[in-house]
Formats: sequence, structure tokens, C-alpha cells
Amino acid sequence: MNDKCVDRLEKVLSEISKRNGALKIVTDLDAEKAFDAAKASEKRWQEQKELGPLDGLILAVKDNISVCGLRWSAGLGAWKNRIATKDARVIKSLRDAGAIVFSMVNMHEGALGATTNNPHFGRTANPLDFERTPGGSSGGSAAAIAAGLADAALGTDTMGSVRIPAAYCGVVGLKPTCGLVPRDGLHFLSPSLDTIGPMAPDIDTLGYMIKIMAGTSKSDPLSRTTPLEWMKKPIEANPSGIIIGIPTQLNLVACEAAVIDSLAITRIALEKYGAKVVDVDVLGWNPSCARRAGLLIAEAEGAVALKNILDFPGQDLMSNELRSLLAYGRDAPRNKLIDAYNCIKATAVATIKIFEQVDALLMPTAPQQAFRHSDPVPKNQADFTSLANFFGGPSLAIPVPSNNLPNSVQIVGPEFSEALILSIGKSIEQNLA
Amino acid sequence: MNDKCVDRLEKVLSEISKRNGALKIVTDLDAEKAFDAAKASEKRWQEQKELGPLDGLILAVKDNISVCGLRWSAGLGAWKNRIATKDARVIKSLRDAGAIVFSMVNMHEGALGATTNNPHFGRTANPLDFERTPGGSSGGSAAAIAAGLADAALGTDTMGSVRIPAAYCGVVGLKPTCGLVPRDGLHFLSPSLDTIGPMAPDIDTLGYMIKIMAGTSKSDPLSRTTPLEWMKKPIEANPSGIIIGIPTQLNLVACEAAVIDSLAITRIALEKYGAKVVDVDVLGWNPSCARRAGLLIAEAEGAVALKNILDFPGQDLMSNELRSLLAYGRDAPRNKLIDAYNCIKATAVATIKIFEQVDALLMPTAPQQAFRHSDPVPKNQADFTSLANFFGGPSLAIPVPSNNLPNSVQIVGPEFSEALILSIGKSIEQNLA
Repeated sequence: MNDKCVDRLEKVLSEISKRNGALKIVTDLDAEKAFDAAKASEKRWQEQKELGPLDGLILAVKDNISVCGLRWSAGLGAWKNRIATKDARVIKSLRDAGAIVFSMVNMHEGALGATTNNPHFGRTANPLDFERTPGGSSGGSAAAIAAGLADAALGTDTMGSVRIPAAYCGVVGLKPTCGLVPRDGLHFLSPSLDTIGPMAPDIDTLGYMIKIMAGTSKSDPLSRTTPLEWMKKPIEANPSGIIIGIPTQLNLVACEAAVIDSLAITRIALEKYGAKVVDVDVLGWNPSCARRAGLLIAEAEGAVALKNILDFPGQDLMSNELRSLLAYGRDAPRNKLIDAYNCIKATAVATIKIFEQVDALLMPTAPQQAFRHSDPVPKNQADFTSLANFFGGPSLAIPVPSNNLPNSVQIVGPEFSEALILSIGKSIEQNLA
Repeated sequence: MNDKCVDRLEKVLSEISKRNGALKIVTDLDAEKAFDAAKASEKRWQEQKELGPLDGLILAVKDNISVCGLRWSAGLGAWKNRIATKDARVIKSLRDAGAIVFSMVNMHEGALGATTNNPHFGRTANPLDFERTPGGSSGGSAAAIAAGLADAALGTDTMGSVRIPAAYCGVVGLKPTCGLVPRDGLHFLSPSLDTIGPMAPDIDTLGYMIKIMAGTSKSDPLSRTTPLEWMKKPIEANPSGIIIGIPTQLNLVACEAAVIDSLAITRIALEKYGAKVVDVDVLGWNPSCARRAGLLIAEAEGAVALKNILDFPGQDLMSNELRSLLAYGRDAPRNKLIDAYNCIKATAVATIKIFEQVDALLMPTAPQQAFRHSDPVPKNQADFTSLANFFGGPSLAIPVPSNNLPNSVQIVGPEFSEALILSIGKSIEQNLA
């Protein structure tokens, strides 16, 4: 960031007032507090007392993470008027580093879906092509960055909800290691799969963000202690000597030609730069079966998390579409639920095993580019992204060049390998941008 | 083992014919094949061509692991006459190392229970006190060793079913790392928690057995690759410099005085021998809550695994007691099942975290010594053992001296730390025996 914080905030506010009517990204904001924070940040920079590289970062927050004084709806009509009374743990950490937490942004209803076409808060448009979706469920977060309505954003990722919008909107997004980022102040969809992840225009910002967001929580049952050497060094582009696997499972998923092309370009670039790229069979992973298992768990756990709303009728509280998804999870035969948990456990083991052969995996982020609002939602959207949620490791979505709509690849690494996958991402950024 | 294999087998057979009527341990055997194998083993020893230290080991096998040509009932009346047509993967491995796989032994019905009081095959007695239970569910396996009806045995462990009988009968028992021992040929109770584990009179035999039993399976979804350095060195008693934690959670479980005393004796012995023993809070682990969650999962997964029998009425197929346990799992509210899976995940994370502070955990194996057949089954029996099933690491039950009934402590280590926990066990064996 820099010392022109108030100017930048004014510009962002002006963009919001001009563009938000059409884009439907921001759902709530507090300009006054933001200006106070921006002035304080500017003063710190002038006095060379800035709190770090993120001092003055203008941050948009997905509507299921609590920011004191702002709306906290989780995308649900029932909570349209709920105002958070406390900052989520990550919000506090980012504020302490100088971030200007400024606006809440739209999301797919209940964080369960692929388009951010929200029945209560409107349909968010992809800033790069208004006729297309920004993806879901953190569509507002990715779109805010792409539209210049924020410097960076927070999303949440249960099956790919940070990385898919990042891919569709041409920004970088990270699903961190499960347990790395405390989830206090997140309204859960699926406590066993949910993570909070940062989104940004570039790897460096993302790296600074995740360092600040990491922490240990006593109230998050999946919270872990960060390993001592985690992210201690600056992120440098240096894939030399790294072995990267491309899963043969790609052949099981129908991908658009542009997506396959981007992967091939990335592979060649990484090889030129010194990485060894090999094809690997993640034996035991069936992308569509595993994704269906994950979806059932999200629906079943979501039915518990949202029980109080699900139990009351009314489309104004929760759409019939979301109701039927959650009811499906609530009423699924127990043996299907057991099979789903066991499928995910087996998929996790398969993934952990593959990291005995390779340092990281390379895949497309989504099998398709951002699709038209009028097109049916592709069922396979989370086939690749959900793998990281199942085994708990980190995954980075990073844009790669394309002629028109954004393309994106995903780098998946073992638990706590954020430094490694960001470094691979940086080599892609430097060599393909 | 040694070159007097035929003699030893004759002695074992004679013990069986004398004692099995009262003990109700062996449920099937093939003496003829065993003699052929014993003769072959003896010949190998005489020619100094033995297949390894276990050549000639007389092995008893729990009735839910398939041994070609012998009964394979899983303790169920429905399968009273089922004869296995194939060796389980571990049986093949042990035969290849010269083991004489000789007899099937009694187990708690369906592997779900604490006493080996089997309605279809009789009530197994503890050879050390016939009025007491050998524990469950691998009670026949532990009792066979204690009674001298086998040199060693295989059991299965879902919540503690190898270690509890080992404790009650005064033998050593190991629940290996989840995924270390292939489960091909095991009739599952709970695919997410079941493991196959060895039982023996001493640590050395146990160590040889687990080395041979380890392997990678393509058909077991939880199978893992053994790390390169796993168990490469001989097991030596050397706890010097090792940090061992005793969970403060012990205070939450009502333990018999003799059990607490044994733990104190073990602690002092290990400290004298150079280990540092500290009290640790496994933050997030509530033994009774977690055990109940595990039991629900075992019941729910068991209802799926045994569906074909559960669907047919008849106490001769399955007792009403087991039917009601499985039906409880089958019919449990979905949110309870979800809570149970999430409780286990949280307990697993809590345990993985504690190994950042300590090398291993020390606890009693069971909160009580072997109880009388006439006493009610203690509910807290698996409070300590189930922890290792939840996070997947290995756990060793090892006898410690006592005045009358056997006492036992349990050493739990991180995934694939079999060498370490066996070495700690060996120092207990050498210094307290």
C-alpha cells in the first residue's frame, strides 16, 4: 500500500457509487469509519510508522464473516438486517495490521452455490463481462477486486468458493490449510470443510494477507498450530527442482478447450523455469464422486447450521432452492451420509499419498471459464477445487493469460505448504503475466 | 521361534483339547495342515534356511479375518458355517514369513462389544481367572496367548478391541497406524476406524509381526505407503531424551486405584530410565464424549456393514442386543451422526497438536482390570483406547506388574511412530517385568 490512502478510498467510494448499481457487489459499507481509518493509516505512512506492507489495504469482506457494525447476512434473507456486534478473529488481525475493513460484499445464498445470484441481495455481475457470473459462493469478493471496489477481499471456501470466483474474475485466491486461519466469527456452512481465504490482485498481497490471517484459536475445533518455519521467508519465484504432478484424473472431467490450453501453457512455462512436471494418478480419487460426497456433507452440515431458518417457511427468509438443497442433506439416508464421510476420508488419504511422489499438484481451477447468467450451472464446477478441502491442504488459484475471459490454474500442496505454492504461483505470475 | 516346531504344535493342541472346553477360545482349527506347516518350518530351521524370526510362530486369528479353509463368522450366528475361501492379505504375509496359521478364535459378536461373551460361540473366560472376562472384542485372541493355546494372535481394533483384551489378559497388543496394515479379507465393522493389530507375549514378537503385516493395498481405501525409515532398526529399550505426556484428561475418567498405581509406577520407571514425563492437556479431547461419538459411528457404519443380517429377524442370526445397538446407529438423527464425525475430527486435530509438545502419550489402557462376568460392563472401557483410532496413530498396550490381575499401560504416538512406541514399551518391559 502507500501514503495516499484517503485518495484511494475516495476513488474506491466513487467507483462503488458509479458501478455498484449494475454490479451488485457491495451489500453494506461504513464510509465514515473507513475515512477515519484511512487518515490514521496515511499519518502512519507519513511518519514512517506504518504497521506493515498492508497498512491502508482497502478490504471487502464476504457477508458471512462478522465485521462489527456492518451487516452479517450469510447471504440469507432471514438475516438481511442482522448487524454484527463483534469483529471476526481474522478481521481483528487484519485491522491490527492496518487494513481498512470497509465493505461487506454479496455472496451466494448461504454460501452453498456457484453463481452469487442472490435472491435477497441481487445478482452480482462479473465486472469483466456483465452477462457472465463472477462464480460463487464468494463471487462478490472476487468481483470487488476485479471492479476496483477494493484492494483485496476475504472469501470462504468449502468446496472451492474462494478459488472458483477468483478464477472467473481473474484474481488470485487462496484456500489455506485447514486449521491455519481461525474461524471465530464465521457463520459456518460445513464446519468440517469451511475455510476463510484471502483474495487479491497479486501473489505478494495474498502472501502478506495469509501471514496476518494465520493464528491459533481455542474455540475453533480444527485450529492448528502454525509450524515454526511456516512462511518465514519472502515469497520468491523459484520452482527450480520442484516436482509438480498433473493428475490423470483431469481426463475424467469435461474441460473447456481454453482451460486445457492454459494448463498446457503453464506446464511449459514451469518446465522452462526449472520445475519437473509429471503426470500422476491420484489413485482412489474420483473427482465427480468425491465432489458429490462433499456436496452431500455440505448440505447435511448446512441443514444443521441453518436449522433455525430451515424450520420456518418463507422465501423471504431462504429461497426454495436453498431449502430443497438443505432438506436433501437433512433427509439423506444415513448410509449415504456415512459413505460420503468415508469417501472424503479415502480421497484425503489418496491425496496425502501423492505428496510422497510430488511437491505439489497442478490442475485447472474450474473446468470452465465464467459462464453466462443464462447458461445452466455446470455440475462439475468444483470437481478440481474440492480436493483440497477434503484432505485439508492449501490451494492457490492463479490467473494465466487468455485472449478474452480469464483462465486460472490451481496449485495444491500438502498441509502448511503455503510458502511453496505461493512461490510456484509467483513464477507463473512472473513468467506468464 | 525355534526348531522344535512340531513339539510345540503338539503341546498347543494338547492344551486346546484339555482347556478349550472351559475357556471357549478356539472356534475352528485345522490340525492336519498345521502339522504340515510345522514340519516344513522345522526342516527350514534344521537346514538354517528359516524364513525369519517368526518361522514356526503358531498363530491364532480372530474370527473376522479370513483364513482359507477355516470358519469366518465375525462372531455372528448367521455366518456360523461360513468357510473362508481365501487368505486375508495379512494372513498371506504372515504365512510367507513362516507363521503357522492354525486356529480361529472367539470374539465379541460382530466385533462390537466388551466381553467376548458370544451368544453363538460361547462365553470366553479369562485364563488368569475364569470368573472374569478376557475383554472384547478380540478377547479370544488375547486369551489364546495367555492360556498357551497360541504363540501370538491377530485381533482387530475399532475403539480399543486389540488393546483392552491385551490389558485384561496380560499380553502386549498393538493398534497400528491407520492404513499401515492392509485390511483386505477383514469383515469390516467400521471402515473408517477398523484396524488389524498383532498381539503377543512380548514386544520383540510384536515388533516382528507388525513389520511383516505392514503393506500397501490397492483395495483398502485408507491404505498408506510405509515411510522409508519406518521400523528399519531393531527395537531397543532407550527412552532417554524422549518426552512423554500424561493427559490431564485422566482426571475425567473414573479409574480403579490399581490402574492409577500402575501408571505411577510406569512413570517413575520411565523417568529413572531417562525419559521426561510431563502432564499435558489434550485441549479439545473429552474422553467420554469422544468415545460416545466413536460408538455411534461404529454402530452406524456397522449397520451398513451388517445390513444383510440386520434386515432378517432371528436371534440365531444376530442377538437382539447387537440388533438394538446397530439399529440405534441406523436410526440415529442425522445431526447426531454429523456431530459424531465432527467430534472425531476435532479430537484427531487435538491429538495431532499435542505431538508438537511431546513424543508420545502415556495412559492406562483401560480404566479397570478384567471385571467379573457377573459385573455390569463398564461404560468407560474404551475412553482411553479410542483416542488412537480417532487420530489414526499407533498405540501399544503393555502389561505392568501387579499383585493379582494384570495391569496395563498404553503408549500412543503420532502416525507411523511404531518404532518409537515399541522402544518405550521395551523399556517398560525390561524395567518393570
